[in-house]
Amino acid sequence: MNSDFFKEEDRKGMLIRYFQQYIDVPSKMKTYILEDCSTKTFNKHKFLVSPLDLFPNVYFILKGTVRGFVRNNGEEVTTWISLEKNIVGLTLYPSSTGCEKTQYIQALEETEVIIITYALIEKLLSLFPEMSVLTRKLLWVQYQEAEERNFIIRLSSAPKRIKRLKDTNPDFFTRIPLKYLASFLGMRIETLSRLRSKS
Amino acid sequence: MNSDFFKEEDRKGMLIRYFQQYIDVPSKMKTYILEDCSTKTFNKHKFLVSPLDLFPNVYFILKGTVRGFVRNNGEEVTTWISLEKNIVGLTLYPSSTGCEKTQYIQALEETEVIIITYALIEKLLSLFPEMSVLTRKLLWVQYQEAEERNFIIRLSSAPKRIKRLKDTNPDFFTRIPLKYLASFLGMRIETLSRLRSKS
Repeated sequence: MNSDFFKEEDRKGMLIRYFQQYIDVPSKMKTYILEDCSTKTFNKHKFLVSPLDLFPNVYFILKGTVRGFVRNNGEEVTTWISLEKNIVGLTLYPSSTGCEKTQYIQALEETEVIIITYALIEKLLSLFPEMSVLTRKLLWVQYQEAEERNFIIRLSSAPKRIKRLKDTNPDFFTRIPLKYLASFLGMRIETLSRLRSKS
Repeated sequence: MNSDFFKEEDRKGMLIRYFQQYIDVPSKMKTYILEDCSTKTFNKHKFLVSPLDLFPNVYFILKGTVRGFVRNNGEEVTTWISLEKNIVGLTLYPSSTGCEKTQYIQALEETEVIIITYALIEKLLSLFPEMSVLTRKLLWVQYQEAEERNFIIRLSSAPKRIKRLKDTNPDFFTRIPLKYLASFLGMRIETLSRLRSKS
C-alpha cells in the first residue's frame, strides 16, 4: 500500500461520512462502497452526464462546480448549479416510471468526483434496506433544493432574485460564470452584471 | 354497512391502486391505510397546509385543484399546481435535516382529498420497508415535476413557456385562474392573457 491508496481511502471516507448524516451505514455496505467506487477528474466544460448515458452515474463532488442544463430547440437552460460536498445525478437514476433523458451535467471548473455507478446503486438497494432510506432522504433534500430554485426564479424582480441568491448561495457569485448564473436566475447577462454589485 | 361505507372504501381503493403503480402493497399495509385514512372536502380558497402545521398531512387529491405557494415580504409566489390523482404535501414531510415551513397549499376549487396523517406515515415507515421504497419513488417523481417547473420558467420567452405548458399540462389553461397561472409561469397576467389564445 502506498500513500496514494490512503488518499483514495480518505476521499471515499468523505462520501461515507456524508451518508452517515442520513443513516447509520452498515459496515458491509461501507465495504462495497470502498471497493466499488472510484474517483475521477473532469476537465472544465466536460460532461459528467449527457443524454447518451442510458444508465448515468451518480457523483459525489469532492472539488469543483457543476451545472445541470437542458437543451431545447437550440436553447440551453441551466436549471441547477452544485458545488463540492454534494451528490449529483441521483435524480437522473432511472425509475420504473421512465426518465426523459434530456439532462446534461457539465463541469464548470476542473472537477474531482467519486463515481457511484448505476450497478452499485442497484446492488446496494437490493442488499440493504438502509440504502432505500438513504436515497429517500437524499431525494427529499434535493426536492427542497429544487423548490428553492422554483421559488427564487418566480420572485417578481431581478434585484429580489439576486438578493435571495446572495443570502442562500453567496459562493455562486464568485465561482459561477455570469452566463450560467444569468440563465439560472432567468435574467439577461447585462441585467445581472449591472445589478450584482448593488444588491 | 350502508352505501356510504362502500363509497368511502372505493375512494381509499383509488389511493391503494395509486401506490400499486410503484410497489406491491403488503395486505397488512393496505389494512392500515383503509383504517387510518379519512376523506375531507376543502372549500375553494381554504388551506390544506399552512406554515402553522408542525406536522403537515399528506393528501391524495380525489377531485379538485390545489396550488403550492410561498409568502415572501408580502409577495405570493405560486411554485406548483396540482390536479386530482396526485399526492401533495409529501415533500413537506419533516426530515431529520429540518424543514423551513413557509409553504402553503390552497384549494383552488372545492377539493376532495384523502388525508394521510404524519402519524400514519411514521407508522408505515417503521413497519414496512416497502413504505420507504414507495416514498423514495414518489419523491423521485415529484423531483422530476419540480425540475420541469424549473425548466419551463427558465425558457427565454413568454410564448415558449406557454407553448411548453400547453404541451405538458393543457388542463391548467381551463382550470387554473389566470393570476396563479401567471405567477407559476413568471409573467404578468396581461402578458398571459394576451398570449394564451395565440400559442
